[in-house]
Amino acid sequence: MDNKSIVIKSYKKDFEYSYTLGAFPTIEMIKSKPEYVKAVYVHSTFKERAMLSQLCDNNGIPLIESDKIVERLSDKANVFVVGTFNKYYCSIADDRSHIVLVNPSDMGNLGTIIRTAVGFGIKDIALIRPGADIFHPKVIRSSMGSLFRLRHEYFNSFKEYRERYCRHEVFTFMLNAKKQLMADDVEKPELFSLVFGNEAAGLDDSYLKVGTSLLIPQSSEVDSLNLTIAVGIGMFLFTR
Amino acid sequence: MDNKSIVIKSYKKDFEYSYTLGAFPTIEMIKSKPEYVKAVYVHSTFKERAMLSQLCDNNGIPLIESDKIVERLSDKANVFVVGTFNKYYCSIADDRSHIVLVNPSDMGNLGTIIRTAVGFGIKDIALIRPGADIFHPKVIRSSMGSLFRLRHEYFNSFKEYRERYCRHEVFTFMLNAKKQLMADDVEKPELFSLVFGNEAAGLDDSYLKVGTSLLIPQSSEVDSLNLTIAVGIGMFLFTR
Repeated sequence: MDNKSIVIKSYKKDFEYSYTLGAFPTIEMIKSKPEYVKAVYVHSTFKERAMLSQLCDNNGIPLIESDKIVERLSDKANVFVVGTFNKYYCSIADDRSHIVLVNPSDMGNLGTIIRTAVGFGIKDIALIRPGADIFHPKVIRSSMGSLFRLRHEYFNSFKEYRERYCRHEVFTFMLNAKKQLMADDVEKPELFSLVFGNEAAGLDDSYLKVGTSLLIPQSSEVDSLNLTIAVGIGMFLFTR
Repeated sequence: MDNKSIVIKSYKKDFEYSYTLGAFPTIEMIKSKPEYVKAVYVHSTFKERAMLSQLCDNNGIPLIESDKIVERLSDKANVFVVGTFNKYYCSIADDRSHIVLVNPSDMGNLGTIIRTAVGFGIKDIALIRPGADIFHPKVIRSSMGSLFRLRHEYFNSFKEYRERYCRHEVFTFMLNAKKQLMADDVEKPELFSLVFGNEAAGLDDSYLKVGTSLLIPQSSEVDSLNLTIAVGIGMFLFTR
């Protein structure tokens, strides 16, 4: 089996490599993590190649024209550039604040949260299993490639995360929290962990006791805010 | 052509009716706008019918079991309940604050913005054409049915909107705004319009002059915040 026949397989979680779909995420990847990039594939109809070409040349990355590979990997999306890269493992920083996502399940939401975190200067995301695969091409695409600008680390439980990073002040976002999060009254410790539950279940009551629980005030007319909105508001208030 | 053969067509923008996909949005619709509901269809495998049955009975809405109709309209989504309703036209209130979306294009984002607006008690959304069809089933599903809890109105231009609603203080959210939006320093006039551009283009420079332009401070490492996140943060700060 030669290299090409490996590369054109659709993504699966247990692969040692993954894909970036689209020119923008691929360029972001090469700028941030060139050492992990294996190759970049472009469709014959993709003409604005100057920047991509230059970046690939500078980093010794093969740039290959192949309509077949691009069309197959892009899964019917409107994509003309695909990058392949080796997955990598990293730890989050113990001297920086964290976002902690407990069992995130929606890949699009996970990507949007990553993009928002980088937008607000938070570069460390902890994920508590089970959770979506952060290297899935859908997550990367939804993050617009900003996944490559932050550190991420999976944990088997919140307890495992907490034992490893015990200096952070913990804030859990919950609908049954006692304290309301107000725009002009946010304590901002030097090191904080903002903890969010998943789309369907939120955080269970055990999270009322692991730190300060906070509620984003909202009308009873909606079930809850969308997870990405809640995380966005939380990060905005804690970083400003 | 009898009623059933009309109902089972896939949605098109020029239809006089549309669909809710899923039990939750259908129930929201019946609670908020029972007078527009034509019928509710359930799949034979959908068992938890007590609440839906009661709501339909109380409002004289036919509840029909039809796997064929549900499967056809749900478009491969995991949906067991479909409601049909007549579209309605409404005006936004001139004595309430507004969200103004200029050329919104993504139906999922539009639905999420609607849900967030209702969550923050903003019940009036203006849309500047061209823009996504607010009655599209995808928008309704993404709004979790909260579309039925607010007023919406389309305008051919921002000028047309402004001529009609001239008492509101206007705030435009732009990446090249002069003023940064800070959490603890938001002026909150009694009547405001928060104006947002679309996902790809934002607002053009003409919007620098129609009111106060605001920037949500963000890192240069991302292209921009996701539109729904920007709208969510803007609404949170102006309503708290």
